[in-house]
Amino acid sequence: MACEPFADLLHRFRQDRQHGASELARQALAWLGQSVAERAQVDDAVRQMLRDQISQLCALRPSMGVVAHLLQRWQYQLESFDPSANDVGALVAGANELSALSQQAVDGCVHHAHSLISPGYTLLTHSCSSTLMQLFSSLRETDCHIVICESRPLNEGVTVARQLNDWNIPCTLITDAQAGLYTAQADLVMVGADSLLGDGAVVNKVGTRLLALAAQRDHCPFYVVAESFKQRPPSADALILEQMDVAELNHDLPHEQMANTYFDITEADLISAWVDERGVHRQFSPVVW
Amino acid sequence: MACEPFADLLHRFRQDRQHGASELARQALAWLGQSVAERAQVDDAVRQMLRDQISQLCALRPSMGVVAHLLQRWQYQLESFDPSANDVGALVAGANELSALSQQAVDGCVHHAHSLISPGYTLLTHSCSSTLMQLFSSLRETDCHIVICESRPLNEGVTVARQLNDWNIPCTLITDAQAGLYTAQADLVMVGADSLLGDGAVVNKVGTRLLALAAQRDHCPFYVVAESFKQRPPSADALILEQMDVAELNHDLPHEQMANTYFDITEADLISAWVDERGVHRQFSPVVW
Repeated sequence: MACEPFADLLHRFRQDRQHGASELARQALAWLGQSVAERAQVDDAVRQMLRDQISQLCALRPSMGVVAHLLQRWQYQLESFDPSANDVGALVAGANELSALSQQAVDGCVHHAHSLISPGYTLLTHSCSSTLMQLFSSLRETDCHIVICESRPLNEGVTVARQLNDWNIPCTLITDAQAGLYTAQADLVMVGADSLLGDGAVVNKVGTRLLALAAQRDHCPFYVVAESFKQRPPSADALILEQMDVAELNHDLPHEQMANTYFDITEADLISAWVDERGVHRQFSPVVW
Repeated sequence: MACEPFADLLHRFRQDRQHGASELARQALAWLGQSVAERAQVDDAVRQMLRDQISQLCALRPSMGVVAHLLQRWQYQLESFDPSANDVGALVAGANELSALSQQAVDGCVHHAHSLISPGYTLLTHSCSSTLMQLFSSLRETDCHIVICESRPLNEGVTVARQLNDWNIPCTLITDAQAGLYTAQADLVMVGADSLLGDGAVVNKVGTRLLALAAQRDHCPFYVVAESFKQRPPSADALILEQMDVAELNHDLPHEQMANTYFDITEADLISAWVDERGVHRQFSPVVW
């Protein structure tokens, strides 16, 4: 099957509100691998084109550190590619390998996050993280209760509640504004991440910072579960918190009188521990670049 | 015109999401005054009936301290009523006077709150407070900008934005989850209150506590504007944070899997100052009962 046109991939990337950052990053790697596999040769012109495409993909969803991270890792391979040897297969394999490592890292996160949860716990979470969904699926019959913020404007929390319902996991959906009523009674807060910044601060769906402030106030542990691939590369462009279409708010108001910033930054001192594929870190543990 | 049946008043009280606590309290006083005015005599049986009605009105909207406060003040008059003198007119006048004092107190709050705002300020607010609406109406042509949280589930913030729009006051409506993005850039946060507790903690529309936590974190002053009549009487029943129908969340989920608590409590140490008809208090200033 021929590779999807790059413009189509970009369009999907821009519109996608369903898939998490890791899944989108793996889709981008798959596309790059397939695009290279279709070529007999990767010459300087192709490399320049690939560099441009990587740059465009990273710029499209700037809050998603894992996209920048995985594509940057693959670009290292691209830069050290020897055109005279022209081992195109190695580049393709590199993309596939990074994608597999990314999935393994998620599995590792889930394993370590699970160790923090005892039967009967009440967990509080925000938005929809594919990593946390994998974790929650392992909480069937543990008598845990999950409280989920709806996560306006598109209410990804409702999707989480429906899935938990299918799994017979007791859950309560709340408006984002109610988060401060639940941190005093929850055993812990767990959220995923779109990006981890160099100091351990976390970029995640907007509302996460308020939840973390309430958790700290109420002495409720606040855990961020995110594979190390979500650490933004030092070379990444300056962080921009994505603004989405204010029509998503669904209010009958002039558009210039609404704001729809999708992400916020939760400072490192609000975070009790970072959970990644290497374990549970009480101090932020940056990867080596 | 004959007095509205008490059951109808109760029904309106229970359903009302449009009027603030002060306005509802004044409506209750007007009803009690009119109900007494229609009687030739206030004997022990009538007094007992009025006590019961006051108790029911207070219990219906337990988060609204001003209802308990004003009705308690009127009940003091009722308890010291001398049946042999039978001066029914004094009881009616007492209800009207309390109602007028309540409105004067709101005017006083607005006056003192205004003194905290300089031209060009950015204000951040939550939900819809009739006291703050009166304040905002005085901010026309001051070049102030008002950021309003939508205040799920019924989005009273949208009503505020529309009114500001009619007044040509620049404003930005945000989801409740975005509050933590704005406290660092606003000059101050101002909210109304449904009740003030004995230690100065504030009961207000849910989401207020998260906003206060973010304001404290970002060194943004957090002001509560509420007339002293909003202080809950010491004799009030234990505080219950009202739960409303989860159908208001408008999600297709089993009802037992959603929660819709309408109010939260913002602790006194998160509040920079309390503004009431007596002035701006950096320490909470309880009224004498």
